Amino acid sequence: MADSYSAAPHVSRFPVVSPDDLPPDLQKRYAAVEEKSGFLPNVFAALSWRPAEAAAFFAMHDALMDKESLGLSKAERELIVVATSAANDCLYCVIAHGAIARIRSRDPYLADQVAVDWRKAPLPPRMHAVLEVAVKLAVTPAEVTAADLASLQEHGLSKDDVWDVGAIVAFFALSNRLAHWAAIPPNEEFFLMGRLPRD
Amino acid sequence: MADSYSAAPHVSRFPVVSPDDLPPDLQKRYAAVEEKSGFLPNVFAALSWRPAEAAAFFAMHDALMDKESLGLSKAERELIVVATSAANDCLYCVIAHGAIARIRSRDPYLADQVAVDWRKAPLPPRMHAVLEVAVKLAVTPAEVTAADLASLQEHGLSKDDVWDVGAIVAFFALSNRLAHWAAIPPNEEFFLMGRLPRD
Amino acid sequence: MADSYSAAPHVSRFPVVSPDDLPPDLQKRYAAVEEKSGFLPNVFAALSWRPAEAAAFFAMHDALMDKESLGLSKAERELIVVATSAANDCLYCVIAHGAIARIRSRDPYLADQVAVDWRKAPLPPRMHAVLEVAVKLAVTPAEVTAADLASLQEHGLSKDDVWDVGAIVAFFALSNRLAHWAAIPPNEEFFLMGRLPRD
Amino acid sequence: MADSYSAAPHVSRFPVVSPDDLPPDLQKRYAAVEEKSGFLPNVFAALSWRPAEAAAFFAMHDALMDKESLGLSKAERELIVVATSAANDCLYCVIAHGAIARIRSRDPYLADQVAVDWRKAPLPPRMHAVLEVAVKLAVTPAEVTAADLASLQEHGLSKDDVWDVGAIVAFFALSNRLAHWAAIPPNEEFFLMGRLPRD
Amino acid sequence: MADSYSAAPHVSRFPVVSPDDLPPDLQKRYAAVEEKSGFLPNVFAALSWRPAEAAAFFAMHDALMDKESLGLSKAERELIVVATSAANDCLYCVIAHGAIARIRSRDPYLADQVAVDWRKAPLPPRMHAVLEVAVKLAVTPAEVTAADLASLQEHGLSKDDVWDVGAIVAFFALSNRLAHWAAIPPNEEFFLMGRLPRD
Amino acid sequence: MADSYSAAPHVSRFPVVSPDDLPPDLQKRYAAVEEKSGFLPNVFAALSWRPAEAAAFFAMHDALMDKESLGLSKAERELIVVATSAANDCLYCVIAHGAIARIRSRDPYLADQVAVDWRKAPLPPRMHAVLEVAVKLAVTPAEVTAADLASLQEHGLSKDDVWDVGAIVAFFALSNRLAHWAAIPPNEEFFLMGRLPRD
Repeated sequence: MADSYSAAPHVSRFPVVSPDDLPPDLQKRYAAVEEKSGFLPNVFAALSWRPAEAAAFFAMHDALMDKESLGLSKAERELIVVATSAANDCLYCVIAHGAIARIRSRDPYLADQVAVDWRKAPLPPRMHAVLEVAVKLAVTPAEVTAADLASLQEHGLSKDDVWDVGAIVAFFALSNRLAHWAAIPPNEEFFLMGRLPRD
Repeated sequence: MADSYSAAPHVSRFPVVSPDDLPPDLQKRYAAVEEKSGFLPNVFAALSWRPAEAAAFFAMHDALMDKESLGLSKAERELIVVATSAANDCLYCVIAHGAIARIRSRDPYLADQVAVDWRKAPLPPRMHAVLEVAVKLAVTPAEVTAADLASLQEHGLSKDDVWDVGAIVAFFALSNRLAHWAAIPPNEEFFLMGRLPRD
Repeated sequence: MADSYSAAPHVSRFPVVSPDDLPPDLQKRYAAVEEKSGFLPNVFAALSWRPAEAAAFFAMHDALMDKESLGLSKAERELIVVATSAANDCLYCVIAHGAIARIRSRDPYLADQVAVDWRKAPLPPRMHAVLEVAVKLAVTPAEVTAADLASLQEHGLSKDDVWDVGAIVAFFALSNRLAHWAAIPPNEEFFLMGRLPRD
Repeated sequence: MADSYSAAPHVSRFPVVSPDDLPPDLQKRYAAVEEKSGFLPNVFAALSWRPAEAAAFFAMHDALMDKESLGLSKAERELIVVATSAANDCLYCVIAHGAIARIRSRDPYLADQVAVDWRKAPLPPRMHAVLEVAVKLAVTPAEVTAADLASLQEHGLSKDDVWDVGAIVAFFALSNRLAHWAAIPPNEEFFLMGRLPRD
Repeated sequence: MADSYSAAPHVSRFPVVSPDDLPPDLQKRYAAVEEKSGFLPNVFAALSWRPAEAAAFFAMHDALMDKESLGLSKAERELIVVATSAANDCLYCVIAHGAIARIRSRDPYLADQVAVDWRKAPLPPRMHAVLEVAVKLAVTPAEVTAADLASLQEHGLSKDDVWDVGAIVAFFALSNRLAHWAAIPPNEEFFLMGRLPRD
Repeated sequence: MADSYSAAPHVSRFPVVSPDDLPPDLQKRYAAVEEKSGFLPNVFAALSWRPAEAAAFFAMHDALMDKESLGLSKAERELIVVATSAANDCLYCVIAHGAIARIRSRDPYLADQVAVDWRKAPLPPRMHAVLEVAVKLAVTPAEVTAADLASLQEHGLSKDDVWDVGAIVAFFALSNRLAHWAAIPPNEEFFLMGRLPRD
C-alpha cells in the first residue's frame, strides 16, 4: 500500500534526519545557522535526508545571498526572494525571507508590501525595475529579453549584479517548488521577527 | 554607459572563462563531460565564471539525474526534464536533454513527442501520472496537493522516487531560468544525437 | 494640464475630506471606528469625499461582516476576505483584514498562512471548501456552479451562510478594486496588530 | 440534507421576497423602477431577501450611474458596465445594461459591439482609453498604475470622472459576482429593448 | 511608404472585389446567399479578393453547417459557433451566427445566453457536454482527451457527429482569426434578425 | 454502447478510407504528395473519410503555402506554422512542418529553435515581427490591432503578404485543432528529414 502524504506536515512530507547523522561539513553549517537564528529553519531539516542535495542547495544559497554590492544590497536580495516567492504562493519563502528582509532593511513594513503588491511598494526606481524583471523571470521566463537585462544595468547594476538577479530568481524557483512539494511550513519564530522596534 | 546584452549570444550573455582557470575539482568535472560527449555543453561554459555556483549546480544535477531506480529510470528522469523545460520554452534544456533522452531510451521519437505534447505521448500510465504532476509543479506549483504525491506512489514510485520527481522539476525550474537569463544556446551537436539507428 | 496621480499616496490618490465635514450619520460611524481601533483606517478617509458611496459601502460591509453564525464565524468571514484579497494582490485588504482575522481568531499565524497559500493552511475541511469556492468566485466567477454552492451546504453552511460567502467575496471584489484605484495604503498600525501574545 | 441549488433558476438560487414585505424606502425604490421599466428587473427581486444589502446596493448604483458629466455621459457609464461585465461573462449585466446602453446612446449596435470586442468598437479615443483601463481594473486590478489614471485625465476626464470610472468598475465587479452566485437571469424584456428604430 | 490599416473598416482591412469579377462558381454561391439573406454578408465580400481561399472556405463551411443529424441539429451547430466565437471575442461570428441560431432555434434569447455564459444557458445535458468540449478545443486544444470525445458519444452523438463538433470548432478557429485580422464587421441586418416574434 | 476513442491512434481516432475509394481529384492530389514525399502524410489519411472537407482543406493549404514572395518565402511560411503550432502544442504540425522548414531553409537547427523559443531564434527583424504578430493571432486573436498589421508592412511585407500571414495562422488554427481532435500522429519519416547534411 502506498504511503500517504500529509497535507500540512510539521516539518516536511518526507523523512527528517537528525543533524547528528549528517556529514561533518553539513553539521557545521546547520549548527551555525541554528546558533545565529536561535532555531533551525525547517528547510534545513527538510533537506537533511538528502545530504548531497542539501550541501549543494546551501552552497548556492550562500553564494548568492550572503553578498553585498553597490547595486544590490543584502536586504534588496531578500526582497527579490519575497516578491518572486509571493508570485509562486510559497509560504515558507515569503515568511522566512520576509523576516530576514525586515531585519536587513530595518523596515517592519516593506517586506509585506513587496509580498502583496510590489508594484506600489515605496522603493526606488532601481528596485522597481529589478522586481519587474525578476517577477517576469519567475513567472514567464521565456518573455525575458536582452533589453530587460540592459535596463537593469541602466539603473546602475553591474554585470555581476545583473547575473545575481537572475540567479537569485532561478534559485528560488527551485526553492519554492521544493517547499511546495514537501509542504515545508515556516517556523513560527519567523512570523514576528523584525516587526518590533528593537528587534 | 551600460553594457548591452546579446539577443542571441554564442554561449552566454555573460563572460565565459577558460576551463584552465577553473578550480581543480571543476576542471576534472568539465574534462569528464567533454570527454564523454565529445564537446563541452554550453551550460558548463556559461557557468564557468561563477565557480561556486557551477560546483553546486553540477553536484545537484548529478545527485538527481545520474541515478536509476525501479520507479524512475535515467531515461524517464530525462523525460521529466524535457516535458517541464518545454512548458518553460527553454531551448537549451529541451534540445540537450531531448538528445540525452533519445540515447537513454533508445527511442528516436519519444523526446520530441514529450516536448511538444506529453499528453498524447506513447508512455505507460505511470509516466503519464509523473508528467502530469511534474508539469503542474513546474507551472502552477501552489496547486500541487498531497494527493498528487500519493498518486505517484500508487503508480509504483517509492518515497525516494517521489522526492526525485519534485527535486528534478525544481532543479530544472532553476536551470531553465538561468538558460533564459543568459540566453544559453544548445550546442549544435545535440540536435542530431540519438536520431540515427546506430547512434 | 492634467493632474497627476501619486504612485504611492499617503492615504489616497483622490482628495480626502475632514471627518468634520461629513454628514452626521457618517461622522458617527467614523468616530465609532476610530474610537474602537485607536486610529481611522485609511479606507474611511479615502471614501470621505464621496459620502453617499461611503455610506452605502460601510452599510454593506457591516451587514456582511459584523455577523456571527454557526456555519461562519466572524473570524472565518475575515479569512474569506484575506484569501480573496490576496488573490487580487490588494495590500490594504490583506493587511487590514489580516490584522482583524488575527484578533478574531486569536491566532497570530493563520491570516498570513491563508494570505500566501490558503491551500495548505491548517483549517477544517469546511473552511477549505469555503475558500476554494470563494477564490473561484473572486478570480473566475463564471466557472462557479450550482454544485459549488451545494458543496458548502454539505459542509454545514446554512442557505444564509452560503449567500454570505458569495456576498462577502463580491463586496471585497469591489473593495479591492477601489483600494487599487485610489492606491490606499494600510495604516501602519495594522501590520503588528494581533501578532503578540497579549494583544 | 442539504438544499440543492438550481443551475438555471427563474429569478435567483436564493429565496425571493414579495415587494410588499420590504421596508417602506425600498418599496418606493422598487415601485419606481417597476413603473419606469414596465417590469421589475430580476436583480431587484433577487436582492429582496436582504433588505440592508439591497438598500446599500441600489444607493451605490444610483450614486454612480444616474449621473451625467462632460467627461462621462450616462450612456458611456453603461458601456463601461457592458465591457467589464462581458469580461466577467455576466449574462445579467451584459443584457440588462446593454439594453440601457442602447436606449441612452440611441444606437442599436454599439452595446453588442462593446460586449463582444470593445477594442474594435466605433468609439472616440477617449472611450477607448476608458474601456482599456476599465477592463484592466476588472480583470487584473493590481496592474493598474498611476499612469493609467493620468491617461484618462489627459483624455478630458475630470478627477471626479476618473474616480467614477474606477468606482463603476468596482461596483460591477460586485454586481457580476452576485449575479453569478445567485444565477440571476436577465428578464426577457431586456433582450429586445432599444433595438427597434422607435423604441 | 507602408499602407495603413483601418481600425474599424466598413467591410475589411483588405481590398474588396466586385462579385462580377469572381469566377462563375463563386458568383453563383454569392448570388445564392444574397438572395436568401437579402444582403451579402461581409465575410463573403472580405474573402472575394482571394477566390481560391474563398471557394475552399465556403465549401468547408457548407460541408459542416448545412447538415442536420439526430445528434446535432443545424441550430445546435450554430450554437457551437456562437459559444466558441464568443470565447475568441469575434464580433462578426457572434453576431452573424447568433442571428442564424435565433432563426434556426426559433428562440430569441438562447444565442445571447450562449454567447455570454453558455454554462448557465437553458440547454439539455447533451448540449452542455458538447459546448464544454467545444470551448476547450477552441481555447486550450492540447487539453482535449480521448475521454472528452467518448463523453459526447455517451450523450448520443454518432461518430460522425463527434467529428463534426471538432471540425466546426476548428473551422471557426480559422474564421474567427480571419475576421479579427481583416476586422470584418457584421452587417447591421444581423443584429435584429430573429429577435421579433414573426421573423 | 459508445465507441471508445484511442488515446494514441496509429493514424486517427476516426475511420480511415483507402485512397482508392477517394474521388478522382483527391486521388490525384494524394498520389502526388505520396510520390513527392515517399509516403502519405497522416493528415491526408485522417481526412480521407470526409472527401469534401479534405478537398477544401488541401485547396486552402496549397493556396497559402505553395507560394513564394519577396516578403515571405516558402521556408518562412513554414516557420509561421511551426511557431504557432508549437504555441498550440500540436505534435503533428510541429514535426511535419518542422521537417519541411528544415528542407526549405536548408538549416537543420532553425525549425527546432523556432518551435521551442522563437523569441531567441537567429532570424532577421522582419521575421521576428512576423512571428510576434502571428503568435498573438494564434493565441489571443482579439488583441491584434491595426498597428500590428501596419508594423509588418513597415518590415517590407506587401499587403498580400500581410493577408497571407493572417491566413496561414488562421488555417493552422484549424489544422492544429483537427490534429488534436483526431490525435493524428506525425509519420516517423518526418522526425529525421532535413537534419543530415545531404538530405
